Amino acid sequence: MSATAGQIIKCKAAVAWEAGKPLKIEEIEVAPPQAGEVRLKILFTSLCHSDVYFWEAKGQTPLFPRILGHEAAGIVESIGEGVTHLKPGDHALPVFTGECGECAHCKSVESNMCDLLRVNTDRGVMIGDGKSRFSKNGQPIFHFLGTSTFSEYTVVHAGCVAKIDPAAPLDKVCVLSCGVCTGFGATVNVAKPKPGSSVAVFGLGAVGLAAAEGARISGASRIIGVDLVSSRFELAKKFGVNEFVNPKDHDKPVQEVIAELTNGGVDRAVECSGSIQAIISAFECVHDGWGVAVLVGVPNKDDAFKTHPMNFLTERTLKGTFYGNYKPLSDLPSMVDKYMKGELEVDKFITHSVPFSEINKAFDLMLKGESIRCLIRMQD
Amino acid sequence: MSATAGQIIKCKAAVAWEAGKPLKIEEIEVAPPQAGEVRLKILFTSLCHSDVYFWEAKGQTPLFPRILGHEAAGIVESIGEGVTHLKPGDHALPVFTGECGECAHCKSVESNMCDLLRVNTDRGVMIGDGKSRFSKNGQPIFHFLGTSTFSEYTVVHAGCVAKIDPAAPLDKVCVLSCGVCTGFGATVNVAKPKPGSSVAVFGLGAVGLAAAEGARISGASRIIGVDLVSSRFELAKKFGVNEFVNPKDHDKPVQEVIAELTNGGVDRAVECSGSIQAIISAFECVHDGWGVAVLVGVPNKDDAFKTHPMNFLTERTLKGTFYGNYKPLSDLPSMVDKYMKGELEVDKFITHSVPFSEINKAFDLMLKGESIRCLIRMQD
Ligand SMILES: NC(=O)c1ccc[n+]([C@@H]2O[C@H](COP(=O)([O-])OP(=O)(O)OC[C@H]3O[C@@H](n4cnc5c(N)ncnc54)[C@H](O)[C@@H]3O)[C@@H](O)[C@H]2O)c1
Ligand SMILES: NC(=O)c1ccc[n+]([C@@H]2O[C@H](COP(=O)([O-])OP(=O)(O)OC[C@H]3O[C@@H](n4cnc5c(N)ncnc54)[C@H](O)[C@@H]3O)[C@@H](O)[C@H]2O)c1
Ligand SMILES: [Zn+2]
Ligand SMILES: [Zn+2]
Ligand SMILES: [Zn+2]
Ligand SMILES: [Zn+2]
Repeated sequence: MSATAGQIIKCKAAVAWEAGKPLKIEEIEVAPPQAGEVRLKILFTSLCHSDVYFWEAKGQTPLFPRILGHEAAGIVESIGEGVTHLKPGDHALPVFTGECGECAHCKSVESNMCDLLRVNTDRGVMIGDGKSRFSKNGQPIFHFLGTSTFSEYTVVHAGCVAKIDPAAPLDKVCVLSCGVCTGFGATVNVAKPKPGSSVAVFGLGAVGLAAAEGARISGASRIIGVDLVSSRFELAKKFGVNEFVNPKDHDKPVQEVIAELTNGGVDRAVECSGSIQAIISAFECVHDGWGVAVLVGVPNKDDAFKTHPMNFLTERTLKGTFYGNYKPLSDLPSMVDKYMKGELEVDKFITHSVPFSEINKAFDLMLKGESIRCLIRMQD
Repeated sequence: MSATAGQIIKCKAAVAWEAGKPLKIEEIEVAPPQAGEVRLKILFTSLCHSDVYFWEAKGQTPLFPRILGHEAAGIVESIGEGVTHLKPGDHALPVFTGECGECAHCKSVESNMCDLLRVNTDRGVMIGDGKSRFSKNGQPIFHFLGTSTFSEYTVVHAGCVAKIDPAAPLDKVCVLSCGVCTGFGATVNVAKPKPGSSVAVFGLGAVGLAAAEGARISGASRIIGVDLVSSRFELAKKFGVNEFVNPKDHDKPVQEVIAELTNGGVDRAVECSGSIQAIISAFECVHDGWGVAVLVGVPNKDDAFKTHPMNFLTERTLKGTFYGNYKPLSDLPSMVDKYMKGELEVDKFITHSVPFSEINKAFDLMLKGESIRCLIRMQD
């Protein structure tokens, strides 16, 4: 039992007060966890593009003031009533989706979209009582993705907190809590390329590079990286990407360029940018007869996917995934173990690191396309 | 060697001279098969909706005069050079798609979309020399789907002709050459519902009823038939359909009606109408997390499939199939064997029968929604 259990904790958090304006480090109050909740001390968090989208709030519902952040690692400070799989002191990863263990999705081997705890980008409060656990001078501050990890302490539903090996370095495995598992799982759990096959990856951020890493580990022989920023290509080689296409270098749609390169299309495509153009291209660039495209990138809320239905009839498949189809509580501990055994590399995703006080630098680096993952050190 | 081998055959064919106008039975000339081709004597043919679409030519490319027809059974009259798997006298089913045996698709276990012999609705000539084998008074008449079975004799690429058990009744197994295999395979080869699952079938024509039959044989417990024509529902019970939805009976989109009936959506949907509204509804009515929708119905050429990409991200799958993913030469003989062993019922699909001279009646029956399959007896 920690000394702070049951108490309000005062701590620092980076608050997004307005769309697109720099976060402000504030002293806030974090209420104790209620039944079924966990209060986590966050040690490391990293910036994912989803944080940036909801901060910009251009194509997404604006909700401010809000504490963003969802890719992180920490230690359990205290637990609410009824929480049995975690105890104070446990090392843990919070995840933007969860497992209630009871619903049809949790009981299905095919789905990780828990009815209760699936991602909900518009909710800014806890599920239990519809209230926020964060406040400043009495003003509630909204949660984000149920995680809000840009805070020294945060409250998360226990079904969204995976207990992991305490020997795992939290400054590394934190990237498994979103981007790396999302991209890696999209390839190995969903696209499932065969050895010797061709895979196109759209968007070479952390998610896309993890998808490429999954293709490399699956034995794909051609891994074609597609990005609008050519400077991504050099780094992408480390993740198995061995051919590159920048749509800006061509007059015709990128799906046609890829079809020409691959004698009709790739065997698999994994879309990791969220751009609606890339979503359509990723589908249309797979080979007829057997091609499978997997969507990962989150589109704007008004985007429409549009194609001729004949592109489906000619035996192409399109599917989507959240969090690489991993179930956070069931699967994340073994992903951490894979890392510990050297079967999965994560260090190479972390290209930058800043102290918490410089969190806005992480946003700049992502917006400029310079970082893959920028680690944010909460205690520095 | 038949007496007519190598000769032009004069025979009767039903010619579509103009879009939407009754076919005219004409005496035409059928040239001998060239290298790699087979001349078939058609004994039975049945009308499929694809014939009607290309005859109406409303949403499809018009090409007239044309001999329609592609669901049929017959006997090999003569063969062209190099044909080895067939000989005169063999009982055979012509198919609108084929197997060259050499291309990437033929070599892949996943695809039946042969590069050379896949369906091509706009081609009205033979692949070998780009010419028609049909003429009347020297005027060429276009082929349809490489089969043109509304003729006493027709010439077909050998890769599109499956040799079958001579004991099989041709007036029954003819429906395997398109509709029944298409729908049945869409369910058992592509949608693959699990025992106890729910399946929605859009369009209760022969193709949809065959899809329902596939669901029944797969052990699906809820088979929801969707059709605009309520009179289809009574007959559909014989094919395992045990719930019915007519979109016209509801104010809200049919996908919402189905989601309410099934606690969030069906496990599988098979679209067998070709209506673009039904295509979109079939996709959107599957359950998130694990739902799979399979497209079979052929849309108009200007139709666009449109949905919010989030419907994919929430782990739904959409794919299409031609001919139920069966490879005609490899798989059709064993489908006929299944029928002979009583493992597959086809008789119940054939609701009407007319002599060749009354072929236009078959069109009327389909347009009125009265027939499932109307058999056309070429020799009566
Ligand atoms: N489905 C999920 O579970 C899930 C989880 C995490 C992140 N995401 C989403 O995945 C996407 C990628 O996240 P990230 O952190 O790797 O972002 P990132 O910004 O690091 O990478 C995105 C990359 O896509 C590129 N890009 C943009 N438009 C493009 C286009 N039209 N064609 C090709 N490339 C294009 C950018 O240049 C950039 O390199 C985001 O949409 C994010 O919201 C989804
Ligand atoms: N992909 C393939 O390999 C393949 C092969 C054969 C046929 N087809 C196509 O399959 C479809 C069905 O063929 P069929 O011979 O069974 O036709 P059919 O006319 O006998 O049956 C079609 C049924 O769909 C119903 N329908 C029309 N619009 C609808 C809607 N919006 N919602 C629900 N039901 C609707 C009609 O009332 C009718 O009962 C056609 O589009 C045909 O071209 C595809
Ligand atoms: Zn993320
Ligand atoms: Zn659940
Ligand atoms: Zn047909
Ligand atoms: Zn082939």
